[in-house]
Amino acid sequence: MLTVHHLNNSRSQRVLWLLEELGVPYEIVRYQRQPDMRAPKELRAIHPLGKSPVITDNGNTIAESGAILDYIIATYGNGRLIPPAGTPERLRFTYWLHYAEGSAMTPLLLKLLFTLMPKRAPALLRPLVRKVSNTALSTLVNPQIKQHMAYWEGELGKSEWFAGNEFTGADIQMSFPLEAAAARGGLEDGHPKCVAFLARIHARPAYARALEKGGPYQVGR
Amino acid sequence: MLTVHHLNNSRSQRVLWLLEELGVPYEIVRYQRQPDMRAPKELRAIHPLGKSPVITDNGNTIAESGAILDYIIATYGNGRLIPPAGTPERLRFTYWLHYAEGSAMTPLLLKLLFTLMPKRAPALLRPLVRKVSNTALSTLVNPQIKQHMAYWEGELGKSEWFAGNEFTGADIQMSFPLEAAAARGGLEDGHPKCVAFLARIHARPAYARALEKGGPYQVGR
Repeated sequence: MLTVHHLNNSRSQRVLWLLEELGVPYEIVRYQRQPDMRAPKELRAIHPLGKSPVITDNGNTIAESGAILDYIIATYGNGRLIPPAGTPERLRFTYWLHYAEGSAMTPLLLKLLFTLMPKRAPALLRPLVRKVSNTALSTLVNPQIKQHMAYWEGELGKSEWFAGNEFTGADIQMSFPLEAAAARGGLEDGHPKCVAFLARIHARPAYARALEKGGPYQVGR
Repeated sequence: MLTVHHLNNSRSQRVLWLLEELGVPYEIVRYQRQPDMRAPKELRAIHPLGKSPVITDNGNTIAESGAILDYIIATYGNGRLIPPAGTPERLRFTYWLHYAEGSAMTPLLLKLLFTLMPKRAPALLRPLVRKVSNTALSTLVNPQIKQHMAYWEGELGKSEWFAGNEFTGADIQMSFPLEAAAARGGLEDGHPKCVAFLARIHARPAYARALEKGGPYQVGR
């Protein structure tokens, strides 16, 4: 049976959600983040980088959210949650699968990093670290996040979902940057279509079932 | 005709290389980085995020290296540079297409960022910024780069190329993190298989032709 190696509060929540959308049976092996938020060493037994999500299925071990979604939809989807080959929607679908982690998450990760750096610095150095971090945030990181959020808002103005007028795996993949931007990027200000997108996905029964299975889910602020 | 919107010293070099490998006719529209290394505003007319690479072909505009490689190979490859569907090699191929930008480039980007931060800081603050940057590099960034490089070395010990014993688009996609790690991550120390990989790709005639077309190419240090 397909096994999801599930780390709490992580991108593997998306994988559970996809499996619930498709009604694919699966089992969960659970891993808890360490107090420093890193993934535990046990995950390295599954994949050398010790990251989540990872799935195992039929002797294959697959990592990277985009590759996992691609595999599950190709293997178990029977044409569901993916636009037909040869359509512009299919090109957009593949684009979003890559864009979410290849581009959108980068400034959101930097935001988290530069927000945490002052908090973790020794007390004496903290004001200096905060000054350095704030400069990086205001000159480099925040403008990039704004640009990405405006881009999503524009795209969700062209069609109801990211790859067109049907809900697809691209929306599952894109949910993580949008959740992260809502948690730490100011998405709720001036991006009504993005906010409505998040409300629509949260209302899906499969999303709720995945949360029940995966446990509490909170994106880092 | 397929058009590559080519930014000097960027990921679009990979796209030229793939097109040369496949012998696909294309034209280049050139963009020069600004003095601050950012892409020029003109690229925003092609794609709202103004990033490179972007290609236009048959009325489609496609961004994200992984999605571009996928499109070109599916449209013009006739089965070349991609393992057959349903094989473990194909799963690895798709994995590397996502991993290169979704995971591998992240710590390499952080390395560049924390190396540049002290250099760009006002002279008076420079020693402090350098201290903060060096802490981030030694505790967070460098250990991650090491882990990724060791992982590549292990994978290239299992097969000659990233997705198996044949050269594929996965090797083109992975060339960028390996080039970046050679420029700024210390790849040449203790990773003979990675160094040999870079030597093999540099020796390919299509790689040389792409360099001629794209112009001088130097990954940021």
